[in-house]
Amino acid sequence: MIFTVNLMYEEITKFIDDTQDDAIDALKKLVRIPTVAAKGEHLQETADIVEKMLQDSGLETKQHPITGGAPVVTGWKDVGAKRTLMFYDHYDVQPAEPFDLWDSPPFKPEIRDGRLWGRGVADNKGDTTSRIWVLKAFKETGNDLPVNIKFVVEGEEEIGSIHLPEYIDKNKDFLKADGGIWEFGGADINGIQEAWLGLKGVFFVELEVVRLSRDVHSSLACTLPSAAYRLIWALNSLKGMDSKILIEGFYDGIKPLTEVELEALEKIDLNEEKMKEEFAVDEYLNGLTGQELKKAYYGEPTCNICGITTGYQGKGSMTVLPAKATVKIDFRLVEGMHPNDVHKKLRKHLDSLEFTDVKVIYFEGYPAAKTPVDHPFVKIVNAANIKTHGHDLVIHPTSPGSGPLYLFNEFVPMVSVGCSDFLGKAHSPNESISLENFRKAQHRVVAIIDEMSRW
Amino acid sequence: MIFTVNLMYEEITKFIDDTQDDAIDALKKLVRIPTVAAKGEHLQETADIVEKMLQDSGLETKQHPITGGAPVVTGWKDVGAKRTLMFYDHYDVQPAEPFDLWDSPPFKPEIRDGRLWGRGVADNKGDTTSRIWVLKAFKETGNDLPVNIKFVVEGEEEIGSIHLPEYIDKNKDFLKADGGIWEFGGADINGIQEAWLGLKGVFFVELEVVRLSRDVHSSLACTLPSAAYRLIWALNSLKGMDSKILIEGFYDGIKPLTEVELEALEKIDLNEEKMKEEFAVDEYLNGLTGQELKKAYYGEPTCNICGITTGYQGKGSMTVLPAKATVKIDFRLVEGMHPNDVHKKLRKHLDSLEFTDVKVIYFEGYPAAKTPVDHPFVKIVNAANIKTHGHDLVIHPTSPGSGPLYLFNEFVPMVSVGCSDFLGKAHSPNESISLENFRKAQHRVVAIIDEMSRW
Repeated sequence: MIFTVNLMYEEITKFIDDTQDDAIDALKKLVRIPTVAAKGEHLQETADIVEKMLQDSGLETKQHPITGGAPVVTGWKDVGAKRTLMFYDHYDVQPAEPFDLWDSPPFKPEIRDGRLWGRGVADNKGDTTSRIWVLKAFKETGNDLPVNIKFVVEGEEEIGSIHLPEYIDKNKDFLKADGGIWEFGGADINGIQEAWLGLKGVFFVELEVVRLSRDVHSSLACTLPSAAYRLIWALNSLKGMDSKILIEGFYDGIKPLTEVELEALEKIDLNEEKMKEEFAVDEYLNGLTGQELKKAYYGEPTCNICGITTGYQGKGSMTVLPAKATVKIDFRLVEGMHPNDVHKKLRKHLDSLEFTDVKVIYFEGYPAAKTPVDHPFVKIVNAANIKTHGHDLVIHPTSPGSGPLYLFNEFVPMVSVGCSDFLGKAHSPNESISLENFRKAQHRVVAIIDEMSRW
Repeated sequence: MIFTVNLMYEEITKFIDDTQDDAIDALKKLVRIPTVAAKGEHLQETADIVEKMLQDSGLETKQHPITGGAPVVTGWKDVGAKRTLMFYDHYDVQPAEPFDLWDSPPFKPEIRDGRLWGRGVADNKGDTTSRIWVLKAFKETGNDLPVNIKFVVEGEEEIGSIHLPEYIDKNKDFLKADGGIWEFGGADINGIQEAWLGLKGVFFVELEVVRLSRDVHSSLACTLPSAAYRLIWALNSLKGMDSKILIEGFYDGIKPLTEVELEALEKIDLNEEKMKEEFAVDEYLNGLTGQELKKAYYGEPTCNICGITTGYQGKGSMTVLPAKATVKIDFRLVEGMHPNDVHKKLRKHLDSLEFTDVKVIYFEGYPAAKTPVDHPFVKIVNAANIKTHGHDLVIHPTSPGSGPLYLFNEFVPMVSVGCSDFLGKAHSPNESISLENFRKAQHRVVAIIDEMSRW
C-alpha cells in the first residue's frame, strides 16, 4: 500500500514538474485579465475561464449566478472516497493603482529573477491555478483521486465577499467536507512555510458628526459647536492611551486562547527585531514583547482608525470651522464576539456619554472563526508540508486579519497554506510569487490528498 | 464756518453721486484683474493701477518693493492740517474657486439687482476704490482737503500679510496718524451699519504625528502604534468637552473686556435666532445666550480644528493603519496673549503628557489689537455715520476674526467701516456689494474727513 501511494505521488509530482511552463502559462492567462472586483470588470469572463480550467482537470462544474454580483464557480469530483477535500479561492483581484509604481505592467505578467510579477499572482490567481493544476495532473497521469474534491471559487473576495453568504445559504450541503484549504498562505520572512488556522472577524463602521449647515469662518468657533472636536471626544472615549477599548462590555464573552493555542504561540517567531526595523518603530504597542506580543497579535480585538475626514486638508493655512467630520473605524473581532453585538454596545456607549450627535454607519461585519490547532486535518497538512518542504509548518492559530472564514468553518475545518511569501506584496504594486514556491505548493497539495486518503 | 463746511460736503457728495458710473467703472477695471495672492498672479499689474488711481486723485505715491512678495503701494497728501486720516486697504483677492458655483464669472464684474458681482468687490477692491474716489472728488471739485491723507495698500492680505511687517518696520513714521479706516466693514443682517474696532490675534499650527515607516494593514493595529489615535488623544488633551482650553496657563494674562466694552456689548444685537437658523444649530456653544454669548464672541480665545488628514478617505471601507496623522488648528487670541507664548505653552503641555511624538509646526501668528470704544476717533466715525446713514453705528469692540491690526494700532487708532453687507459673501462664490452701499460709503468718508477737520 505504501509503495503504491508513493508511486502515485512520484508520478504526479513529476508530471507537475514537467508541465510547469504550461501551468505558468495558465496562470499568466488569468493574470492578463484585469478582474478588478472593485470596478466590476471582467468578472464573468474570468469565471468562465476558471470553470473551463476545472472542467479540463476532470471536475464537474457549475456557475451560481449572483444578482448584481460576480458568479460563484464550483467544481467537484465525487469518487466515493471516505474523505472530501475542499478548496476556497477567488478569481477577482485588488485594483492595481498606482500603475506608475509597477516595474512591469500589472496585467502583463512577466518572469524576472525566478518570480512571476503581476496583479493577482499572489492573491489569489496563483493559488487558484496551482490547486487546479494538481487535479489536472491526476487526470492526465490517469491516477484515480483517493479523496473527493470540491472547489468554491468566488469573484468578490477583494470587496468583502459581499454576496458569498447568499451562495452559502443556498448550498450548505455542498460545503460539507473533512478539510479545506483557504485561499492564501505561504512562507514567512525566513522562508519557512506557515499555516493560518483562523481569521479574525471585523466590524467596520463610519462615525459621522454634522453640527452646522455649512463650513463657516473659524472665528465663529467661539460660539458655534465643532463637529471635528465632537468626533475627537467621541473617539477618545472609545479607547484609552493604553489601547484598552473602553466600550462597556466590549471584551465580554471573548474566548481566551486555549492552552494548545498558547503552546503553538511559543513555537512562533514573529521576527520582532526585523519587523520593528521594517515599520521603523522603537517598540511594539505598550512595549509588548515575546509571548505577550503574540497574545495581542493572535488573541486581541482592536479599535483602529482607518481614516478621518474633516475640514481643510490642502497646503498652508485655511481658517475654517468644518460642519462635518467623519472617521472610518475597523474593529477586529476575536472568537466570542459578534459585530451586531459590538454595534449595539458602541451605540449604547456613545449615547451614555451624550454623543447622540455621533451617527454610526454600519459598513460590514462578520465574526471570527478558527480551526482548532489540534484538529486531525491540521496534522495532515503539516505531514504533507514535511514531505514537500522538509519542515514543520509554523502554525498560526489565527491570522490577525479578517475574512469570511466563519461562513465555511461551520461545515469544514479550513487551513491556509499557499504559494505566496514575504516578498509577495499582495494588494500593493509589484505583486509577485516565487515560481519555486508555486511549483512546491502544487507538490504539497498532492501530498495533502495523499495523506488525507489514509485518514 | 458750519455753512462753509456743509457747502463742501454737499458739493463733494453731489460730485460723487454724479460720477458713480465712473466710480463703478474704475472698480470693475480692478475686479477684471484676477489678483489672486495665493497664486501670486497679477500683483504688480494691480499695484500699478492702484498707484495710478491714487495719483489721479491728487496724491503723491510710492511703491515699496517686497522681495519675493507683492509691492506695498502708499499714497499721501500733506496739506499741513492738524489731523491726519489713514486708510489701510489691499488690492489682492481670495481665489475664486469653485468657479462653477458663480452665477456670473468672478472676474467679469456684472451688475444685477442693484448689486455688483465679482471676486473682490466686497473684499476689498470696492472699499479701496470708494475711498480713493472720495479723494478724486475733493480734487475735481477744487475743494482743499481739511485733513492730511495717507493710504497703505498692500497686496498680500489674503495670504496673511506675510510681508507687511517688513514694510512696517522700515516705515514707522509714515504710519503715524490720528485715525485710520481699516479695510473691511459694512451693514449687518438688518441693514444697520457696523464698526469693528479690533481684530483678534491668531496662532495657526499644524500638529503632525508619524509613527510608522508606511501605512500598514490594519490587522497590525493589535501590536503597532496608531498615529491617528495618538493625535486624537493629544487633541483631546487640549480642549475639554465644555470647550475650555486645557493648556496650562493658556488664559493667563488675558485682558478682560472693559466696563466700557461690556456696555457696548449690551447695545449689540447678534441676531441670535436668525443666526441659529442660518447655521442650523439648536443652541450656541454651551447653551450661551445674551450677554454671555457676546462675551464669548468678543472676548474669548479659541482652539479650533480647521482640518484633519489621516488614512483612507475614499468611499467604502479600506482597512489600513495610517503611518501619519496631521491636524490644522487655529487659536484665536485676545488681548494679553501672544502667539510665541502660546506656542511655548502648547509644546510644554504636549511634553508634560508625553506627547513628544506630536510635532508642532508653526504656520503664522500675531497678537490681537483694539481701538478703545471711547476713543475720540470712534465718535468722529459715528457722527459721520449719523450724517450719512441716519443712525448710530453698531460698535463691535473687536471682530471675532483676525488680522494684522496690531501692526498699525501702535501708531494709529483704526476703525473698520466699509461698503459691504451681510449678503456680500466675501471669500465665497457670488461675492457682491450693493451699489447703494458703495455710494453711501463714499459719502461717509467725506463726512469723516469733515468731522475730523473739526477735531
